[in-house]
Amino acid sequence: MPIAIALVHYPVYNKLGQVVATSLTNLDIHDIARASRTFGVEPYFIVHAVEEMQAFAQEVITHWTEGFGAEYNVTRKEALSFIEVVPDLATVDRHLQKLWGRPPKFTITSARNFPFTLTYPELRRKIDEEDEPICLVFGTGYGLTDEVMLEADYTLEPVVGPTDYNHLSVRSAVSIILDRLRSIPVKKGL
Amino acid sequence: MPIAIALVHYPVYNKLGQVVATSLTNLDIHDIARASRTFGVEPYFIVHAVEEMQAFAQEVITHWTEGFGAEYNVTRKEALSFIEVVPDLATVDRHLQKLWGRPPKFTITSARNFPFTLTYPELRRKIDEEDEPICLVFGTGYGLTDEVMLEADYTLEPVVGPTDYNHLSVRSAVSIILDRLRSIPVKKGL
Repeated sequence: MPIAIALVHYPVYNKLGQVVATSLTNLDIHDIARASRTFGVEPYFIVHAVEEMQAFAQEVITHWTEGFGAEYNVTRKEALSFIEVVPDLATVDRHLQKLWGRPPKFTITSARNFPFTLTYPELRRKIDEEDEPICLVFGTGYGLTDEVMLEADYTLEPVVGPTDYNHLSVRSAVSIILDRLRSIPVKKGL
Repeated sequence: MPIAIALVHYPVYNKLGQVVATSLTNLDIHDIARASRTFGVEPYFIVHAVEEMQAFAQEVITHWTEGFGAEYNVTRKEALSFIEVVPDLATVDRHLQKLWGRPPKFTITSARNFPFTLTYPELRRKIDEEDEPICLVFGTGYGLTDEVMLEADYTLEPVVGPTDYNHLSVRSAVSIILDRLRSIPVKKGL
């Protein structure tokens, strides 16, 4: 039942449907690391093709895991220790094969709906009962390119509320999806 | 079944347990507005006692609802249109009484566990079946003060994963809790 997560900054679409690399957002590092740590999901891969952005991500991580931040905020250190900065999904694949001894099933989450989509209970079953190794893949900007989508093993149903508005931040979407896949009830319910 | 949400910046605790006012975070405005809009939760009250911070919040909102941002990103405009900036929870109470014709039940969410805590299915039942008007209250910093906690109508169980780490960002916590209270399954499941 291992789950990893990858946040992709390239290749993704921009507002106009062009393929671009997006900037790294500081809170994407922190929020997603904290949610991943909470739900026992690791590693958290930050995927960026641009070397300067990889260096920036690494600088933020080092500040909180080894620098001043590590002493100032120990829970932040703990969360950010599980991050790996990599150039592409092929590297994620290689790292996970080495770590888990078998290839991950890349599972794409999208605000768009696809015909071959798994529900959350279905994916949860694959994780909990069938012991499939899953790497959840999230796109920044206006979403993962069709090329990435088509190479995925699974697609996961979009998160929707009782409105027709579906523009969650990637930080919100990740948090909700990890909760749906890994939450445990405290008391009676859920 | 109306639900509103309030993000409190004062009074909250800091790391040392002192009562402080926290700074406004730009992404708290955006992420929580987008999640609220997705799950049909409104208004979204930003509670801050400091006038300069209220003005800053209002400036961000105006940029996206009337200024350049409104034309640049229409979905952002839609999300940020539901925000009200207020000085305290008493004002939230007055506004909601006026809006809904009855006082809201203030429902506190906390990473800490309290004996009189509702589960998510229990609160969902109160909303969906008993038509109780709910205002969810979230604290920034290191959480809402005991004084605020004691005045609440309900407390909601903490969000936990399969680890002992419970340091979600407030943006993540809000997203997960709205999903638990308002999600609808797309296909077969949940």
